[in-house]
Amino acid sequence: MQKLSLHPDRLFPAHEATRSIARELYESVRGLPIISPHGHTDPSWFAENEKFSNATDLLLVPDHYLLRMLYSQGIPLESLGVADASGAPGADPREAWRLFASNYHLFRGTPSRIWLDWVFSEVFKLDVLLTAESADPYFDTITDALQRDEFRPRALFDRFGIEVIATTEGPLDTLESHAKIRDSEWDGRVITAYRPDPVIDPEFEGFRKNLDALSDLAGEDCTSWQGYLAAHRKRRDFFREMGATSTDHGHPTPSTADLSGAECEDLFRRVKAAEVDPVDAELFRAQMLTEMATMSLDDGLVMQIHPGSFRNHNPALFKRFGRDKGADIPLRTEYVRALQPMLAKHGNDPRLSLIVFTLDESTYARELAPLAGHYPALKLGPAWWFHDSPEGMRRYRRMVTETAGFYNTVGFNDDTRAFLSIPARHDLARRIDCGFLAELVAEHRLDQAEAAELAQDLAYNFAKAAYKL
Amino acid sequence: MQKLSLHPDRLFPAHEATRSIARELYESVRGLPIISPHGHTDPSWFAENEKFSNATDLLLVPDHYLLRMLYSQGIPLESLGVADASGAPGADPREAWRLFASNYHLFRGTPSRIWLDWVFSEVFKLDVLLTAESADPYFDTITDALQRDEFRPRALFDRFGIEVIATTEGPLDTLESHAKIRDSEWDGRVITAYRPDPVIDPEFEGFRKNLDALSDLAGEDCTSWQGYLAAHRKRRDFFREMGATSTDHGHPTPSTADLSGAECEDLFRRVKAAEVDPVDAELFRAQMLTEMATMSLDDGLVMQIHPGSFRNHNPALFKRFGRDKGADIPLRTEYVRALQPMLAKHGNDPRLSLIVFTLDESTYARELAPLAGHYPALKLGPAWWFHDSPEGMRRYRRMVTETAGFYNTVGFNDDTRAFLSIPARHDLARRIDCGFLAELVAEHRLDQAEAAELAQDLAYNFAKAAYKL
Amino acid sequence: MQKLSLHPDRLFPAHEATRSIARELYESVRGLPIISPHGHTDPSWFAENEKFSNATDLLLVPDHYLLRMLYSQGIPLESLGVADASGAPGADPREAWRLFASNYHLFRGTPSRIWLDWVFSEVFKLDVLLTAESADPYFDTITDALQRDEFRPRALFDRFGIEVIATTEGPLDTLESHAKIRDSEWDGRVITAYRPDPVIDPEFEGFRKNLDALSDLAGEDCTSWQGYLAAHRKRRDFFREMGATSTDHGHPTPSTADLSGAECEDLFRRVKAAEVDPVDAELFRAQMLTEMATMSLDDGLVMQIHPGSFRNHNPALFKRFGRDKGADIPLRTEYVRALQPMLAKHGNDPRLSLIVFTLDESTYARELAPLAGHYPALKLGPAWWFHDSPEGMRRYRRMVTETAGFYNTVGFNDDTRAFLSIPARHDLARRIDCGFLAELVAEHRLDQAEAAELAQDLAYNFAKAAYKL
Repeated sequence: MQKLSLHPDRLFPAHEATRSIARELYESVRGLPIISPHGHTDPSWFAENEKFSNATDLLLVPDHYLLRMLYSQGIPLESLGVADASGAPGADPREAWRLFASNYHLFRGTPSRIWLDWVFSEVFKLDVLLTAESADPYFDTITDALQRDEFRPRALFDRFGIEVIATTEGPLDTLESHAKIRDSEWDGRVITAYRPDPVIDPEFEGFRKNLDALSDLAGEDCTSWQGYLAAHRKRRDFFREMGATSTDHGHPTPSTADLSGAECEDLFRRVKAAEVDPVDAELFRAQMLTEMATMSLDDGLVMQIHPGSFRNHNPALFKRFGRDKGADIPLRTEYVRALQPMLAKHGNDPRLSLIVFTLDESTYARELAPLAGHYPALKLGPAWWFHDSPEGMRRYRRMVTETAGFYNTVGFNDDTRAFLSIPARHDLARRIDCGFLAELVAEHRLDQAEAAELAQDLAYNFAKAAYKL
Repeated sequence: MQKLSLHPDRLFPAHEATRSIARELYESVRGLPIISPHGHTDPSWFAENEKFSNATDLLLVPDHYLLRMLYSQGIPLESLGVADASGAPGADPREAWRLFASNYHLFRGTPSRIWLDWVFSEVFKLDVLLTAESADPYFDTITDALQRDEFRPRALFDRFGIEVIATTEGPLDTLESHAKIRDSEWDGRVITAYRPDPVIDPEFEGFRKNLDALSDLAGEDCTSWQGYLAAHRKRRDFFREMGATSTDHGHPTPSTADLSGAECEDLFRRVKAAEVDPVDAELFRAQMLTEMATMSLDDGLVMQIHPGSFRNHNPALFKRFGRDKGADIPLRTEYVRALQPMLAKHGNDPRLSLIVFTLDESTYARELAPLAGHYPALKLGPAWWFHDSPEGMRRYRRMVTETAGFYNTVGFNDDTRAFLSIPARHDLARRIDCGFLAELVAEHRLDQAEAAELAQDLAYNFAKAAYKL
Repeated sequence: MQKLSLHPDRLFPAHEATRSIARELYESVRGLPIISPHGHTDPSWFAENEKFSNATDLLLVPDHYLLRMLYSQGIPLESLGVADASGAPGADPREAWRLFASNYHLFRGTPSRIWLDWVFSEVFKLDVLLTAESADPYFDTITDALQRDEFRPRALFDRFGIEVIATTEGPLDTLESHAKIRDSEWDGRVITAYRPDPVIDPEFEGFRKNLDALSDLAGEDCTSWQGYLAAHRKRRDFFREMGATSTDHGHPTPSTADLSGAECEDLFRRVKAAEVDPVDAELFRAQMLTEMATMSLDDGLVMQIHPGSFRNHNPALFKRFGRDKGADIPLRTEYVRALQPMLAKHGNDPRLSLIVFTLDESTYARELAPLAGHYPALKLGPAWWFHDSPEGMRRYRRMVTETAGFYNTVGFNDDTRAFLSIPARHDLARRIDCGFLAELVAEHRLDQAEAAELAQDLAYNFAKAAYKL
């Protein structure tokens, strides 16, 4: 069987002198605690601290990066252990794992391979490559380990050196897991983030029912525009009590608007109707981004915008298996005109901290770096989703740095529900960033001492500061 | 005179350790047969096996890459030997060649230079650089060689190690050359591909007359929607008999549609009219892509889409010299919404094999790799046309691999009518791909054994499998 | 204090063999005179030859690259010495300089840092890095030096080895500084360029008043279309007398049009009205680009188009501080359809020299290189503004060269009002270009002798030829 071992110089530039600079920079940041300011881990893991079940249910079934690639080669999701919407269970976990293992070559050259090899090697001490041949030993080793206390969520959290992790919840969430964590004896810091899409996006499934639920939860009358805004304020306050330092907004576009009060009232009336006009829906989302920014000026929550994904592009798959199965596809995205109304209103206010992400790399150098390099309120989030990868991160730094500098960026986000891969993802980011800094040093575009300072900033300080953690 | 010699390490990364990995990978694939699944060579060359005439008519006049660059510097096409539409012949071949030779420096840094130097050196054993000074010896050496039997089309085909080559023909073509090749004693495999643009695109010159001709050829009444579809099926069957394993579609955009039968009949009625509305024309092309996909499910033909070129951008040049003279310019292209109707209908069917190309590199990482990395039916074609070049191929691999992996790509297409350059183009692709793999190995992102396997796949296996050859 | 020294190998590729080729190429061009065919220095500097005042007013206040980055971090412009529109002066120069110095780390990884370090080291012989600690010695050293005759504008011009520099003026400018320079005993060549945006763009502030002023200056009746065109011709002639070899057009988009005479008259009537329809305004700008090209055929002025900037994106900042304070943001830009009407009319005429720029790098390989690699009239300007940087220039060469070649590009533009940084900018461009050529040589894609010839072309010959200097 082919050996699995993580090369100490992996992901550094190949050129020897540059590599040696990268290695030195990396050594100075590899042990820093992990700041995870944006992600999708399940807070109940840390609240309940139950054992994870088996390799497949932990590592394969919830990972849309894996599902999409395997599915693209004609492998049915149910054979990978994914239950369908009717509740029909997926394949037996061991069978699913075997199928995954025998297709592991598909991930060559992808970040999933890097993350998983790290998990296999560092967390489970496996020392052969995952193949059809090693599938069973892998499944057994991992599943057995998960029965031990040191593989429970809190133990892994501590072992991974996580200083703080943010989960993401909607306004209708009662945050009971977060309360339980807070009230426990465990001192791990797990905080929430306010993601109001279900009550902001008129095209979200169940929008009108969600407004009713919001009224109930907040004790405000969300049939009126003012009551609706008040409900947001209350829920934001509640989320802040549960540790939230940020909001997050997953809109189709980054459009913003700055309507008059009367226009807002009219618009809100229209979007509450049974049939919503798509133009109204877009305008309402746009106005609400500005409203959220206005609230952030009061309550200090950092605001994140994650736009530009065509969700559920594959209707048959969506119908059968639901969301987040790897069928979300990026769209071309425009920021300069889209953000202008909000930036005209609040962009000069240094109290506002607005972090913008993109799935459209053509906007890095053209739109986002110039905007972030001008507006005090605006910062640029790290390479996101499909671009959270070695080449993606390099493109990000190369296209962004010369115009936005380093100091208008905010460090790394792992943005994942794949809990075990979190250290792998931060390790990858630290290696790539150190490699980039090393290239600047090797070309005499940066002094080594400056690079060392920036390595700390990119790995730790920037995220902590930008997210007020 | 300046020497011409092809350096054995050309096109590999300069870094020594990386280069040495690239060299080793390349040695293992350099001798593999050539699979040429998509191109524009003339089947009559192989059917008739006549001698080529002279250097200019073989190498300069038909090569739109050369014509465009020379023209961009103010050199009239007629002075390069190009006949105009009125039939006025171009300059004398030797004079044209001299003009080309004295401007050969224009191609510095372009792939044309790499391809041509290979042809000069490897096919004609020339050992000085093409310049004004060497123009005559070049012309004579090449033209003389072409009079020898070993420079006839079939001999070159065999010498080049071509296992199979696909030409491209329209539905109105009777494929007599292909029949003649099939019935000959020669065992070279030259197949056709079905390119129905002239009878699918209502804006194609002579569309209505083409429909009449299609009716006659297919023995179906193409004035009705059902007869029209039946005619396509018959012609596809005929093309399959002549070896075709694929169709090809050169639409302005990749728009697809999924209309009802009644809507299709209405639309077909409208686009047959003398004046076609551009919106109808676009919708008809869109619907026909979906119809072609439906037929592919029955007959197994692989489907290629080559969208996004503004054809004949220069009206004066088009009027005087016609198509394919270097005046086609890429357009920004959108795939995510455009392909959705067809993918919603057929994208989950692994029997369909849909290969998509682009001239808009901003879609690689944003749209195409995510789509190809999800849909079982979709694969991503190689770097195309303007991007079929060292830097273009590197950008392709770097932007595509992390999201689509290697296994949703389909190897190399030479896509050329420049027959003699085919081995040069495959050699270039193999060198660049081996260099890319070597970089992954050097950065410990891929094992050497995996790279060796992938080198074979990229150079040979993927094209053979994806095109069912 | 940290040392400041410019490494002799800065900005070259790190790989030793490649670097050594780059170094050799660079040595052969580093001493070439500077051709500065497009920029924004103030001709009165050279006409009056007054001493510059102090470090802040010379280096910080007019540099929108510096202002934008500092402002993005919440530093108020007035604290940097910028006067507001009401005339309220900015902070004391020394205080402003201290603030700048203590934030100099923000420029790590940006071209501003490279340019400024060059100015500090080469012009003012400073040998420690600019920091809060060195702020005062810096301010004093620079301000003192500026009192010496060898730091007057003409002395610096001569010392910098500038062969020719073009400034940019509007049609309403009387070019008195240029006349004074011409009539002086000094033989420095400072020429103007014709930038008619204020009298071409109906949305420009004061457009209608500008037309009146144009009538007066030109002695033509600009209330009529023919009079308006005649006025342009006269002003162009006057600018040519003052040395102009080019025009420049800073439109929001590169749209062109080719309307009939009657349509032009109608349109001109409409855009002179108090309320201009935005569609009309865009169409008028489009038509005027074609008119300018037509005039260029007569008078030989080279035509530059600099499109795609959303000017004054930040209304509050614009209201308080005016233009050019770092709040211009690039927009996605389309060229293929936009330029087609003009290219259809004049693109085949080799007498026309049209140089196009972009802020949208996604158009390099997709649109601009294909267009420049076909049309005799079209050339591609260098990496511009946000992309005038090491990574930006590398992307430019890598994305442009394979399709446009080197010979459809026009060398370097510094495009700056930061006079002292001009040699630094040319030095940076020469280093990056030599590095790019060295990479081609190291990969055996170009011979060393060819690279040496191209290095001269890129550093000197191309700009001189393209701008007819």
